[in-house]
Amino acid sequence: MWAGRRLEELPSPAFTVDIDVAKKNVQRMQERCRDLGVALRPHMKTHKTLEGGELMTGGTRRGIVVSTLAEARFFADGGFDDILYAYPLPFDKVEECGALAERLEAFHVLVDSPDALALLKRRPLGHGKCWKVWLKIDCENGRAGLRPCDPAALDLVKLIAGGATELAGVYAHCGNSYGAHGVSEIQSVARATTTQTLQFVDTLQNAGLPCPVSSIGSTPSCSCPVPEMGQLSEVHPGNYIFYDVQQMMIGSCQLEDIAVRVLTRVIGHYPHRNQLLVDCGWTGLSLHSLGQLPTGYALVEGHPELKLVGMTQEHGKIEPLKGRLDFAKFPLGSLLRLLPYHACATAAMHPLYYVHSGGQVVATWKPTRGW
Amino acid sequence: MWAGRRLEELPSPAFTVDIDVAKKNVQRMQERCRDLGVALRPHMKTHKTLEGGELMTGGTRRGIVVSTLAEARFFADGGFDDILYAYPLPFDKVEECGALAERLEAFHVLVDSPDALALLKRRPLGHGKCWKVWLKIDCENGRAGLRPCDPAALDLVKLIAGGATELAGVYAHCGNSYGAHGVSEIQSVARATTTQTLQFVDTLQNAGLPCPVSSIGSTPSCSCPVPEMGQLSEVHPGNYIFYDVQQMMIGSCQLEDIAVRVLTRVIGHYPHRNQLLVDCGWTGLSLHSLGQLPTGYALVEGHPELKLVGMTQEHGKIEPLKGRLDFAKFPLGSLLRLLPYHACATAAMHPLYYVHSGGQVVATWKPTRGW
Repeated sequence: MWAGRRLEELPSPAFTVDIDVAKKNVQRMQERCRDLGVALRPHMKTHKTLEGGELMTGGTRRGIVVSTLAEARFFADGGFDDILYAYPLPFDKVEECGALAERLEAFHVLVDSPDALALLKRRPLGHGKCWKVWLKIDCENGRAGLRPCDPAALDLVKLIAGGATELAGVYAHCGNSYGAHGVSEIQSVARATTTQTLQFVDTLQNAGLPCPVSSIGSTPSCSCPVPEMGQLSEVHPGNYIFYDVQQMMIGSCQLEDIAVRVLTRVIGHYPHRNQLLVDCGWTGLSLHSLGQLPTGYALVEGHPELKLVGMTQEHGKIEPLKGRLDFAKFPLGSLLRLLPYHACATAAMHPLYYVHSGGQVVATWKPTRGW
Repeated sequence: MWAGRRLEELPSPAFTVDIDVAKKNVQRMQERCRDLGVALRPHMKTHKTLEGGELMTGGTRRGIVVSTLAEARFFADGGFDDILYAYPLPFDKVEECGALAERLEAFHVLVDSPDALALLKRRPLGHGKCWKVWLKIDCENGRAGLRPCDPAALDLVKLIAGGATELAGVYAHCGNSYGAHGVSEIQSVARATTTQTLQFVDTLQNAGLPCPVSSIGSTPSCSCPVPEMGQLSEVHPGNYIFYDVQQMMIGSCQLEDIAVRVLTRVIGHYPHRNQLLVDCGWTGLSLHSLGQLPTGYALVEGHPELKLVGMTQEHGKIEPLKGRLDFAKFPLGSLLRLLPYHACATAAMHPLYYVHSGGQVVATWKPTRGW
């Protein structure tokens, strides 16, 4: 229905993906991993589309990470396999995980507690299969996972290895790289996470518990890798297919690497308060940038003089950073392009992505939602 | 598939609606409007479901407000009519508005500029119909609309009355009531909006431009109405079907009036940092409460001692407001109920609502999304 149209013809707000930029981002990450000598297991959580997954796996549809069971089902139904559900095993979803593990060649789950592991042991898989279990370790990120220094981590691996479950790998997310400013700070997080992960793998080896795979990831660390990461088995970044203003500010990418925009139209002029309204509120952009940007909730592409100062459900308020707004430059109905602060959050608000090449729509992608 | 199940059996995160509370909220608003002598034209933007619309219109499916064209299509397809698209007419959606206006008994549009009106004049309706056009006025809310004191408002009404368009009403949103603290502040906003709207209607009358309908709305003002509102034709609140923590803090409702929860399960214990993790991140709750609540991003029902201190895409971090967390009280897999800060924002994150009576699921509602 939309293929062949120009972006200017789309109904707004519209989430757009520049396929050429996305392909370049994907290719660069593949090259980076090849150069490092690590496998790339891309995370699907940013886009949640089959087309994005196809691109990020180089067409193999093998070896991905997902953040929800809905994504796992969606990608399995779409012909993907070797899927790692990298989320602390939810107690209400064990049965459905079991069905996926029996149906797919490789469906991996992740635990960081003996209680979660016990649920797996109580639900052995059919077809002579073993649960492929990853241990989540927390290398100073401070979210899920056992700290590698915690004796409980080694104890849990001992429990994993045997019976209905087997150790598939150790997994660390360096989410603390999102607090970095610049490449050097990103790299010190990447180095610390890598070192701690590899040391833990050594500890396992010394305890007679060989660990087949070690995996760390985050878009900042994998966009600016350190050589030590070459000793890992794989990495699992996700956001890099799109990038965003946050990644640019952290130092993961440049402005020209950001593949996504929200198109929005001017719907009102209010000279008495020096503001215009656009048809994108938080349902079209999310509120993730709150207080993070001098230009408000987003960057208005080509207009560094503008600030998106407020958003309600379907309205955005734009005013100049200083001085009077020249309303003649922004006639009612004219299009503005917003660069999102956090692409994962903005994409999550859209039931459809308009994918274009050089401003002409070439496809629409339909993400999965829910849990 | 879910009917008959207990809430405890639902996969989390789950957005739940207590139908008994929602019905009571709806009934009380209907009674309030009856007592005031104004019609109630409920806004659909909070829930965006046919079932919610059915309830709020008392089964008539007539007389609603929508915030997007997607909602307009969805409710029209669901047998609703007399639909007011209360949004500054978007230049890219005129043709589709025309098709709805021709198809429905009454499809109303809204303008606040001569340019938007000109688009309607250039696209006359078939079947001998006239565009039903509302003027949006801005009574100190500071978003869309012409200020009633602005001579441009009267001038625009003169342009509306005649040819392919006719004046259907004037419309004001008292969104500034969201800045209120307590009933008295809510009522002073409600009074100011009402007075300015009625004065503007008088101005029109004196200019020989009778205005058939005057409408103001917001859940705070309609939950705590002032007698002057009885002189309006109608009001158009929306959030009141669900209410939320924000409305409670403003003074629109009590805790027991909040019909919605997000169910979430404990997925991790981290005693070394005195935190537990739950399986609800910003995809399940939104980030709307950022910095608004002493208890973080939400209220944890029954646990005033807990604070939801952080959220990423699929994880929430909970810690005690003070002291050590008693982890034994919150075993892995146990369920917590989050009271959302802003129900519109939280509902917008969910593809399905689980509707229950006394903790037993009686239905699922599927909202519309997009634009």
